[in-house]
Amino acid sequence: MAHARIKVTDVAARAGVHPSTVSRALNPKMRHRISKDVVARVLVAAEALGYQPGAAAAALRSGRSNMIAFLVPDLKSPLFPTLFAGIDAVVSKLGYATLLVQAPPDLAGQKELIRRLDARQVDGLILATASRRDEIVSWVRSRELPLVLLNRRTDEDTISSVTSDDAAGVGMAVDHLVALGHRAIAYIAGPQTLSTGAARRAGFLAAMQRQDLLSDNIVAARSLDQQHGRMATLQILDRSPDTTAIVAGSDLLAFGALQALRERNLVCPRDISVTGYNNIPFGELVAPGLTTVSVRHDELGREAGQMLLGAIEGDKGVRTVVLPTELLIRSSTAQVRS
Amino acid sequence: MAHARIKVTDVAARAGVHPSTVSRALNPKMRHRISKDVVARVLVAAEALGYQPGAAAAALRSGRSNMIAFLVPDLKSPLFPTLFAGIDAVVSKLGYATLLVQAPPDLAGQKELIRRLDARQVDGLILATASRRDEIVSWVRSRELPLVLLNRRTDEDTISSVTSDDAAGVGMAVDHLVALGHRAIAYIAGPQTLSTGAARRAGFLAAMQRQDLLSDNIVAARSLDQQHGRMATLQILDRSPDTTAIVAGSDLLAFGALQALRERNLVCPRDISVTGYNNIPFGELVAPGLTTVSVRHDELGREAGQMLLGAIEGDKGVRTVVLPTELLIRSSTAQVRS
Repeated sequence: MAHARIKVTDVAARAGVHPSTVSRALNPKMRHRISKDVVARVLVAAEALGYQPGAAAAALRSGRSNMIAFLVPDLKSPLFPTLFAGIDAVVSKLGYATLLVQAPPDLAGQKELIRRLDARQVDGLILATASRRDEIVSWVRSRELPLVLLNRRTDEDTISSVTSDDAAGVGMAVDHLVALGHRAIAYIAGPQTLSTGAARRAGFLAAMQRQDLLSDNIVAARSLDQQHGRMATLQILDRSPDTTAIVAGSDLLAFGALQALRERNLVCPRDISVTGYNNIPFGELVAPGLTTVSVRHDELGREAGQMLLGAIEGDKGVRTVVLPTELLIRSSTAQVRS
Repeated sequence: MAHARIKVTDVAARAGVHPSTVSRALNPKMRHRISKDVVARVLVAAEALGYQPGAAAAALRSGRSNMIAFLVPDLKSPLFPTLFAGIDAVVSKLGYATLLVQAPPDLAGQKELIRRLDARQVDGLILATASRRDEIVSWVRSRELPLVLLNRRTDEDTISSVTSDDAAGVGMAVDHLVALGHRAIAYIAGPQTLSTGAARRAGFLAAMQRQDLLSDNIVAARSLDQQHGRMATLQILDRSPDTTAIVAGSDLLAFGALQALRERNLVCPRDISVTGYNNIPFGELVAPGLTTVSVRHDELGREAGQMLLGAIEGDKGVRTVVLPTELLIRSSTAQVRS
């Protein structure tokens, strides 16, 4: 459906001014040249007629849309709304709207989407989709579109990013379990193509080594969801029935672990302790309340928003922010059974 | 940061063709006039140079951005990702990307946001933000932007909408509790300015009347979140200590109710049964698993996507779809204590 195209002359006629006055009144940079009364008259007339300067004129004039886009891998993950809230809190103060977009699963689809956003002159991108070697990331850079990576980063640190200290987070979970007497600790690892998956797994290995424990009880989950956490846990229980604690690489994986334990009539934490990672909303409502690594999502989002605003203003520096995490102890972890 | 502006002539030079051939090759509607080899050469050259036709030219040529926007009141609610998934599943098949946008809380902010989206020639809007008397809705209509209301509708049924049978859903929850022997049933009502809040409350009143029960135990929650559910429940417990069941107008309100019961050392469902509304993800993980009214979110989203595509193609009809709901019985409801 084509929009009804109201012309400048229509607005001018209604406001009783010359068309060039309309253009000036609608252009924030020129507005001071005319009286406030006339500006008001033009704005009222433009509003009444539903006049829109059009993408063409407005974009060419300012080169900006005052919109940024936040691309996420999976909108169903409860992680992204909190990151979004942080971004939006910062950029909205400067008049930017944030578009949340689910990235298509394939490279061609991602390129096409970003091309469209760029054609609409979105002013910058925050990507929560980066894999460690990410063709899209370098492709976006070549388009000179301001870019910040959030939550996940690439192996080459040539692009600004805001992430959490993933390795330290998992290390705290391991130390907590060891302090409770656990030694047979299993790990459910997320995809190793992602920086989060790789760093958390490395954190597990390092902590187990530091504690002089064997770290051969690792199961890979192909995806960071409940279903894969359930399957990985069933595998752990079959393979290593002596396991007394499971460290999961994400909260959703941990939720799946709790589900698998119930299916096998095991009680958490009496029989097996479980920890998660992220502290997504509702983690305190599950039974038992999930002990997890708390990530500062709001702050991550705010940092990323701030960084993108800088890049939009012309800052060409590469900035890397890694925020600390902390362990949140609830009821899914307990002293090992003697 | 201004984008580097590559011109048509640059692409033409690189591809070794006339500039007019570049324009034709890049325009899907004109492309058939030139050989596939030439089209491929131009596309490769355009890609290599990072050429973008620009919002201006591309928009004026096609009048379409192949992007739609889905405006939601609160991105943190777990309701919207599932609605989004349904929309996206339908519209992406026809090449549309869906932008998920959190609506600013105020009218002026909402108008400004929609103005920007419209200026970027977003092809249509799905609003999950409608209140019963909604100025924005009529304002959007006056801009002739294709529009569908999702989940919430306005009192005037002059705009296409896809909603659930809210009243029937709450009725089923009441009937289930009455069958379990409950008579002192309280209701936590969401905001009455929203169609969902009003219809669910009306459904409660109608069901209680049908069952010959008093329906004077209603507490209003100002917002549909956990915190307000908790406060409403504390109020119910103070005011009507004989209450044996609480019907909550949303799952988050019900989660708050569970929290309040725990604080008062009451056990659900032994002491008090609780029902929710929506069947958001993770409802089966809370303790006890929440009995709730299951809404077909994916189907709601799909219907809305389909409807918007129709409107974009010029369908001026007003369509109203109301999808059925069903009761999902888990563990938060039980026989009343004798």
